[in-house]
Amino acid sequence: MNRIPILQMGNTLLVTIQVDMQDQMALALQDDLANKISAVDAKGVLIDISALEIVDSFVGRMLASISGIARVLDATTVVVGMQPAVAITLVELGLSLEGVRTALNVERGMELLRHAGKGKPLAR
Amino acid sequence: MNRIPILQMGNTLLVTIQVDMQDQMALALQDDLANKISAVDAKGVLIDISALEIVDSFVGRMLASISGIARVLDATTVVVGMQPAVAITLVELGLSLEGVRTALNVERGMELLRHAGKGKPLAR
Repeated sequence: MNRIPILQMGNTLLVTIQVDMQDQMALALQDDLANKISAVDAKGVLIDISALEIVDSFVGRMLASISGIARVLDATTVVVGMQPAVAITLVELGLSLEGVRTALNVERGMELLRHAGKGKPLAR
Repeated sequence: MNRIPILQMGNTLLVTIQVDMQDQMALALQDDLANKISAVDAKGVLIDISALEIVDSFVGRMLASISGIARVLDATTVVVGMQPAVAITLVELGLSLEGVRTALNVERGMELLRHAGKGKPLAR
């Protein structure tokens, strides 16, 4: 299985999750993200989950764990693009994604990072 | 199968291709992109293929076709993140991706769009 690509934009990293995550892939993503954050001195991580129709406790834990790893590397994580139905299910399941920041879409997520002093626009 | 998410950043759309495309998916992506370009008045489309280890003639045609559709909708398409091995194979196969613009990564692709007068930074 391929790894999930991590795109760099300025000092922000962007990950689009499109497939159901398995243990192996989630671990690889955590590894890759941690390495990339430290390699490029990233201050923000955007994780787009707009393609996910189900976010179970495994994915929830993964998001929280990535967010925690990024935090100790001095980067802020924002989960963006959550479908309304996913939000409803999450709350019904009692999964509150504690410690994970969210935004409606990538643009709002970038704004949030900028306001947190963690994002800067691309060099021109 | 889920659709490939299209992320909007300013007037640029970003698509990350992570899985091997099948006919159905490629058609859905073309549809979705055309609709989104016209809905949000996008001027640039970035297609990241860094996760692809093989680009065969089907994917090559799809990229050319998306690029053509975007062009008639007044948007410029840039394919970014091609792996070196993929570039070698493409040329060996005689697939030149005619009419498709390429850049090394997302940042370079955005620069290219800006210089083509097709990209503008996010509103602040």
